Amino acid sequence: MQFLSDNAASVHPSLWAAMQAADAPDSPYDGDAVSQQLDEAFGALFGRECAVLWVATGTAANCLALASMVPPHGGVLCHREAHIEMDEGGAPGFYLHGAKLMLADGESAKLTPDAIRTVIDPIRNDVHQVQPHAISITQASEYGCAYRPDEIAAISALAKERGLGLHMDGARFANACAFLGGDAADTAGPVDALSFGFVKNGGMGAEAIVFFDTALADVARYRRKRAGHLQSKGRYLAAQLLAMLKDELWLSNARSANAAAGEIASVAGTRLMHPVEANEIFLHCSATEREALRNQGFEFYDWGTDAARLVTAWNTPQEHAIALSKAIAAL
Amino acid sequence: MQFLSDNAASVHPSLWAAMQAADAPDSPYDGDAVSQQLDEAFGALFGRECAVLWVATGTAANCLALASMVPPHGGVLCHREAHIEMDEGGAPGFYLHGAKLMLADGESAKLTPDAIRTVIDPIRNDVHQVQPHAISITQASEYGCAYRPDEIAAISALAKERGLGLHMDGARFANACAFLGGDAADTAGPVDALSFGFVKNGGMGAEAIVFFDTALADVARYRRKRAGHLQSKGRYLAAQLLAMLKDELWLSNARSANAAAGEIASVAGTRLMHPVEANEIFLHCSATEREALRNQGFEFYDWGTDAARLVTAWNTPQEHAIALSKAIAAL
Amino acid sequence: MQFLSDNAASVHPSLWAAMQAADAPDSPYDGDAVSQQLDEAFGALFGRECAVLWVATGTAANCLALASMVPPHGGVLCHREAHIEMDEGGAPGFYLHGAKLMLADGESAKLTPDAIRTVIDPIRNDVHQVQPHAISITQASEYGCAYRPDEIAAISALAKERGLGLHMDGARFANACAFLGGDAADTAGPVDALSFGFVKNGGMGAEAIVFFDTALADVARYRRKRAGHLQSKGRYLAAQLLAMLKDELWLSNARSANAAAGEIASVAGTRLMHPVEANEIFLHCSATEREALRNQGFEFYDWGTDAARLVTAWNTPQEHAIALSKAIAAL
Amino acid sequence: MQFLSDNAASVHPSLWAAMQAADAPDSPYDGDAVSQQLDEAFGALFGRECAVLWVATGTAANCLALASMVPPHGGVLCHREAHIEMDEGGAPGFYLHGAKLMLADGESAKLTPDAIRTVIDPIRNDVHQVQPHAISITQASEYGCAYRPDEIAAISALAKERGLGLHMDGARFANACAFLGGDAADTAGPVDALSFGFVKNGGMGAEAIVFFDTALADVARYRRKRAGHLQSKGRYLAAQLLAMLKDELWLSNARSANAAAGEIASVAGTRLMHPVEANEIFLHCSATEREALRNQGFEFYDWGTDAARLVTAWNTPQEHAIALSKAIAAL
Repeated sequence: MQFLSDNAASVHPSLWAAMQAADAPDSPYDGDAVSQQLDEAFGALFGRECAVLWVATGTAANCLALASMVPPHGGVLCHREAHIEMDEGGAPGFYLHGAKLMLADGESAKLTPDAIRTVIDPIRNDVHQVQPHAISITQASEYGCAYRPDEIAAISALAKERGLGLHMDGARFANACAFLGGDAADTAGPVDALSFGFVKNGGMGAEAIVFFDTALADVARYRRKRAGHLQSKGRYLAAQLLAMLKDELWLSNARSANAAAGEIASVAGTRLMHPVEANEIFLHCSATEREALRNQGFEFYDWGTDAARLVTAWNTPQEHAIALSKAIAAL
Repeated sequence: MQFLSDNAASVHPSLWAAMQAADAPDSPYDGDAVSQQLDEAFGALFGRECAVLWVATGTAANCLALASMVPPHGGVLCHREAHIEMDEGGAPGFYLHGAKLMLADGESAKLTPDAIRTVIDPIRNDVHQVQPHAISITQASEYGCAYRPDEIAAISALAKERGLGLHMDGARFANACAFLGGDAADTAGPVDALSFGFVKNGGMGAEAIVFFDTALADVARYRRKRAGHLQSKGRYLAAQLLAMLKDELWLSNARSANAAAGEIASVAGTRLMHPVEANEIFLHCSATEREALRNQGFEFYDWGTDAARLVTAWNTPQEHAIALSKAIAAL
Repeated sequence: MQFLSDNAASVHPSLWAAMQAADAPDSPYDGDAVSQQLDEAFGALFGRECAVLWVATGTAANCLALASMVPPHGGVLCHREAHIEMDEGGAPGFYLHGAKLMLADGESAKLTPDAIRTVIDPIRNDVHQVQPHAISITQASEYGCAYRPDEIAAISALAKERGLGLHMDGARFANACAFLGGDAADTAGPVDALSFGFVKNGGMGAEAIVFFDTALADVARYRRKRAGHLQSKGRYLAAQLLAMLKDELWLSNARSANAAAGEIASVAGTRLMHPVEANEIFLHCSATEREALRNQGFEFYDWGTDAARLVTAWNTPQEHAIALSKAIAAL
Repeated sequence: MQFLSDNAASVHPSLWAAMQAADAPDSPYDGDAVSQQLDEAFGALFGRECAVLWVATGTAANCLALASMVPPHGGVLCHREAHIEMDEGGAPGFYLHGAKLMLADGESAKLTPDAIRTVIDPIRNDVHQVQPHAISITQASEYGCAYRPDEIAAISALAKERGLGLHMDGARFANACAFLGGDAADTAGPVDALSFGFVKNGGMGAEAIVFFDTALADVARYRRKRAGHLQSKGRYLAAQLLAMLKDELWLSNARSANAAAGEIASVAGTRLMHPVEANEIFLHCSATEREALRNQGFEFYDWGTDAARLVTAWNTPQEHAIALSKAIAAL
């Protein structure tokens, strides 16, 4: 029973169908009929104008979005445990040509205006110190916690006050949105650009960069090609995205994953290290206990020496979740 | 009837089947069972040890290969009309951190040792001038012409003499190989790294970087992640590559495309601007003549003001090729 | 008798005096009293507002100026034989983060609007091709020829029409200005930024980047620090620049160098490969003839196999110039 | 009375003399007779072979040294308060093409093997995380503390064990050496490259990068030119360096600065935030007290809200130091 990650789960049948429906030859790159529908489809979802680019990975989405906001001599404020800092192999340094990540603290890997100010206020406004140009927040956070609309609004207000761009890494945006009630616009808030993740939510290899500041997209299109991310048969990526939006598949997939996580969290009590607001569960759990779980057939990652990370996916079987919750309760 | 490009053709049914066969969850990134088979499968094809990385695009393949050979202060010798110079949106400048493309001339976009020497011999061996670190050749060339094994050997000898890496852009490697008789090892020759293209040959979004100098692959793995090209569900890319190798599908697809091109070339006589050795035909052709062809339903690109570029694909219907050859003959 | 280059000539006594006058401690970097006078002093010289940054080398000046105009995914149009292309060790690739130099032809290493159009007009306005963002011209050119004001105006008009920045590499701006009659504003024309060279004209290690588009300077200040070019004792550089401007020393030094070059050119007749409009002379001259000159004590560089390059400096002794002109006449 | 910084102090008379002695024309760049003596002169000082490059600033020295050891996808371990992290305007990100600084803690801004291990041991050896390639330590540290030879040896042993390069930022190497007894080799220890600072010690604009791993220098020479740091009249920089080495001027200058700092430290007692082992004094000191000192004519920087930083220089007048120590004692 697999609780290792959502990033390698199977592709949803609707996406297979959509990709195959796009198989007839069409214009290459993003000139095809499917790609051309993305701006409108996402615009309808968010209720405001946007420009949408597909890319194959979240790392590329995050970095292309940030590169449209931050010059090489600038900086990006993010959480100390943000994916862009910890897990992208230095991709921001590459895409942003050496711009600097500026690391802030915060509970459950979420930023607050105060935490941001603690980092940027001491920066002297002179050429000896890198100046911040953008803030990047993660929805849901690395620990599976969702920013509430008012929290994003407060960060956005600070960003505007300081002239900083605001980016959201939404690798698990769907899970956050499902938790928050299903309103995409509320879940994104007034960010300038959103990396809207689909791969962890039943996709094959397509994420969306949603630029609400559409001028940024013009730069990002050049940068996408320059990064080798403009696939010639882009229609297969666009088809995945459209299929996800259709009938809110992205949301129902996320709800399934969240439900499975909720099932497990419901028995975990004080073992929970963070509130479970998406599809990730971080559990205080000794080595012996972890071994006990593994002996019962559960696969998952250790998280340091005294904890476990459990991740559900769109297709986690309900019986697996129930089995795991029972096993945890029995520890 | 479509002769615009091979880069947007449909995906071969065998690849669909292979991708779906890989749908069950497996380890993410390139830890899955399919990805793990690539080194051996390509090693068998080329008859020598190699390390193989999948990526989504030819631009990424070329640039990651070159970045493993060339430091930021170095240079890459390529043809003036090479794809890396003309059509990759400056990707080599990005991936190689500002390294320089050094442009040589040559018939039909092919390099020769003499053409290379003409460029590199005048470079003073001092810090004021960028020093060459690698040569990149394209098989088949931008004009659809194939390097013969002895031509590659001669370039390789020069590369070795000067301590330069040798890279082959094989976006249409399959077509060149089909033309040359079907021996992959002969078609690649003693290059250090090959961008082996599959997307133009019936793939969806997977190319192979084949490192014959396997030490280079160790760097390239870090660079691939850093470029956002390490897809989490990499097994779908690996599945495409394996399916292509199986029963030499890559070669039979290329033979089909070449045959269609040959059909057309056979009637083109002195209109041909370059020998047709792959699946591209460059035709002297006036604006009036091009209009006449288009009025008969043929789609293709203009090539400057007095010529046309026609490209066949793995699935170009024979009747389309025949129809086009008749139409050209009738001009 | 030294005609190798002007780039290693002695430092003018007035500059030594000015540097020593600046020896008392003052604010570091560019906060000192001398640096603070530069904007005004250069503004008075050019008759328009400008922001001026000192740097140690022409390469740094050129690259910092261009980096303020051109994004990493953009391009710079320059002459095929421009210093930034030929002699700066790939510095533009470094400072511009992989932006591309786009090479145009032109007599005596000068660009014309037609030559520029020949390069940029065929560039498709799509993401597959690098788009031009700036033009860089060299005053005087690599072959010692001066752009006339109307020539610069025509290039500037084209730049404005296409939305391109305009940079002037003025490593030998003083020599061009002396030739054109001594009006700095006319010699620069309506460029956005000028690398105003002093090192080849009697300086020690200080050049000025003159930003007529002062907004560009704000970026350049950060980039200068980031490139390690913000010297802590910047007052010694600023002192050199001010001393050069005082009583038009820069112009009288250039006039001396030009006069020496004119002396030599006056006897060279059809040997001259280019008009002598600054302090460089390119001479058709066989190997035997070059040896004859060297045997008489003249030092200079070969220029290819059948020519010589002779460069005069601010302090070339008149008798050396006369001796050389006699020797050439006697060949 | 100036205790702001050593970085803007006057140039030592011997350096003026040496620069003027180098005024006669010589080969440009580093081909001149003075530059050619550097390897031998520094080799004699350190008692081992080395290759020495001059550059104008410590930022350039640090970054060129590190760029010779660390690939763009790699990382550099340094102290959280290191100059390369805090005060170089992001220069390491520029010169190292986006490589990452990895920040460790440590008393008085000094690293220890344990502190380094705390940072690098948790880094998984996979492509998702940036791998360390070098360690950079600062001698004397940002807080004016000197690494003892055994401390450097321990860090070097760890570096070797992990295959990491070892760089020393020696902006105040002379002061550390003076404190440690005057042995340059002991003060540097077995580092691979040393940024040997002279500007803060009576120089004008010349620092030395001393490569004990001489192979690294070959790369650095290209990178120096590419960064616009190869001055054409390099002999004036080389002359400063040689003049500093002559008769151990660098050491006597440092001893003067240290003595002045010692004078002040001797009365500071528990106000001292760090041991005074070079020419910097960090003092607990209230705003009122700082105002009192300033009212007596002492200039210095605040260090946060409750402290002051006082820096002495090679030419700090003894009476100033005595006056300041009395004023502090009287607080």
